[in-house]
Amino acid sequence: MKSFNPPIRTLMGPGPSDVHPRILSAMARPTIGHLDPAFVGMMDEIKTTLKYAFKTENELTMPVSAPGSAGMETCFANLVDPGDKVVVCINGVFGMRMKENIMRFGGEAIVVEDDWGNAVSTDKVEQVLKNNKDAKILAFVHAETSTGARSDAKTLCKLAHQYNCISIVDAVTSLGGIELRVDDWEIDAVYSGTQKCLSAMPGISPISISERALAKIKNRKTPVTSWFLDLNLVMGYWGGSTQRTYHHTAPVNTLYGLHESLLMLAEEGIENAWVRHQKNHQILSDGLEAMRIKFLVKKAHRLPQLNTVFIPKGVDDGLVRNTLLNDYNLEIGAGLGAYAGKVWRIGLMGHACRLENISLCLSALSAVLDKG
Amino acid sequence: MKSFNPPIRTLMGPGPSDVHPRILSAMARPTIGHLDPAFVGMMDEIKTTLKYAFKTENELTMPVSAPGSAGMETCFANLVDPGDKVVVCINGVFGMRMKENIMRFGGEAIVVEDDWGNAVSTDKVEQVLKNNKDAKILAFVHAETSTGARSDAKTLCKLAHQYNCISIVDAVTSLGGIELRVDDWEIDAVYSGTQKCLSAMPGISPISISERALAKIKNRKTPVTSWFLDLNLVMGYWGGSTQRTYHHTAPVNTLYGLHESLLMLAEEGIENAWVRHQKNHQILSDGLEAMRIKFLVKKAHRLPQLNTVFIPKGVDDGLVRNTLLNDYNLEIGAGLGAYAGKVWRIGLMGHACRLENISLCLSALSAVLDKG
Repeated sequence: MKSFNPPIRTLMGPGPSDVHPRILSAMARPTIGHLDPAFVGMMDEIKTTLKYAFKTENELTMPVSAPGSAGMETCFANLVDPGDKVVVCINGVFGMRMKENIMRFGGEAIVVEDDWGNAVSTDKVEQVLKNNKDAKILAFVHAETSTGARSDAKTLCKLAHQYNCISIVDAVTSLGGIELRVDDWEIDAVYSGTQKCLSAMPGISPISISERALAKIKNRKTPVTSWFLDLNLVMGYWGGSTQRTYHHTAPVNTLYGLHESLLMLAEEGIENAWVRHQKNHQILSDGLEAMRIKFLVKKAHRLPQLNTVFIPKGVDDGLVRNTLLNDYNLEIGAGLGAYAGKVWRIGLMGHACRLENISLCLSALSAVLDKG
Repeated sequence: MKSFNPPIRTLMGPGPSDVHPRILSAMARPTIGHLDPAFVGMMDEIKTTLKYAFKTENELTMPVSAPGSAGMETCFANLVDPGDKVVVCINGVFGMRMKENIMRFGGEAIVVEDDWGNAVSTDKVEQVLKNNKDAKILAFVHAETSTGARSDAKTLCKLAHQYNCISIVDAVTSLGGIELRVDDWEIDAVYSGTQKCLSAMPGISPISISERALAKIKNRKTPVTSWFLDLNLVMGYWGGSTQRTYHHTAPVNTLYGLHESLLMLAEEGIENAWVRHQKNHQILSDGLEAMRIKFLVKKAHRLPQLNTVFIPKGVDDGLVRNTLLNDYNLEIGAGLGAYAGKVWRIGLMGHACRLENISLCLSALSAVLDKG
């Protein structure tokens, strides 16, 4: 066994996306203590830039010390009280995972289903909310990573409040890639990941919690099942006070990386990042359509950062992806669930969303398909 | 706001410990996909070297994608069925945290208490097991990071089996620093951290689960509350099969770091690492005793990697630690709980366990105390 030197890939799958060298370097800086005043100062900067990225003033805006799935779990573990009725929208893998969370924490899941590849139907949601006036929470995925569909978070959150529900929004793939306005849209609890449009290393889940959601957490009848994710405790370390109380050891170096990635986002300007994703998506989709490759998602609901396309008839999925990986060092994503073997998911996330990547992808894909 | 360039510290607190430059460099290598064949190969090497470090053949030996507290939670979330009687030994902060876990997962905690600074009393544990023949689990901390006390894991695990209990062992601070033999001692579930004697970045928790514990998990009457930590699901990604199924996105770069740290441990030889910790502890404690500084823990139960000493009378705790940090870039740890302001915790963990660090620590501490 020897040191691991990874191959140099171009990451155009559903995440992780290419990590910028500035972020990689940041992670390699010397570790310091998680209560070191220098570290505590950096934590404040992370909170400030995360608020900027989420477009929120929520004081409880912080990175959970674990991947996106743990961010999801943080929201559900803290917000679902046993017996709570939760309306959950399923139009892909991550809506299903939300339902799993609700059930495991003792909630009652009321499912609103839409076909994979479609956006969540706001009409159906309104109907279900109307029929379940005792529902406490509406949960949905803003950018469904399994299909590439974008749902109308603004309207859904408005409906949630209209029917006295708290909203929980999965923004794992949306943060930094498409418009997301936590305060304007009145999102109550939102979680994301670092390895998508923030282009940082995988392993951290930024979250933001509104005052309204916080009130629900403080009024819980039962303790949060998870000690590690209990926000009442985590707040002692990440909360507003300047006095940081030890809860768990923060992932120091990974947070250096997150700090650098948020700094880069602020340097570019988040609105500019949204525009860049949209512009490059257009170029990629023009190229794919010129190759007669069809998209799964209707134009109006397509995520620019995640392009799900049908594998042309007669083409061997595994062979193409392996050839791209082995010969071109290019990773694109496979389909999930019913779409396994039927679609590819081509990511244009964060630092991976560059003209040179699009060029490589179109040209390599075309060469491999021509050969096949 | 600008890039964060941390001060260069010497980390001799309770963790994180100094991270070796080889590990820092490893983390900065380019990110690849978590299902990339190259990555999957590296995962196998991590499993092999983790088995070596834990001295086990347990197939389910893997790193949890979150800090030590999540490793603890993984063990309790999977092994405690609601209603289970769990005998838990408390002789410091981390035994208390175990109890929190047991209660949150619906277990009944039967507490065996020992004074902070003492080892867990095997006699008391035997008595309690005798009085609670229906107990299902015995849980204790091998190396209590809050006090620096080592407990007799071998005897405790033997007692557990004698009374038909599964054993859950906290080895966060012990792994790589003192003798730990998962198979020989028949430990059923053990968790550790990367930021102590493995000298890797904080954020990952290696665990190992025996066949016997696995059988209990498979026979659970209720689903594991946590989706993220449910070993039935995590095994699809980290388990024995060559086919790795997506569960959550692995913290790719952090695992590069863990891989490098385990490689370094194998290069040194784990028994040699144990000897190095013991030898250097002797030098440090001779030096401290020469300064008339007294240890909290009796000699027989002292952890070489965590030296808890009483703050000399009349000395200002905060002033000394701040001076060491600001003037010498040296971090030592504060006391916790009832020992806050009364003790210091001086770590000699992994890469921080070197003669030059001991020399710096003794000389700086002596200068600061003389001045004060």
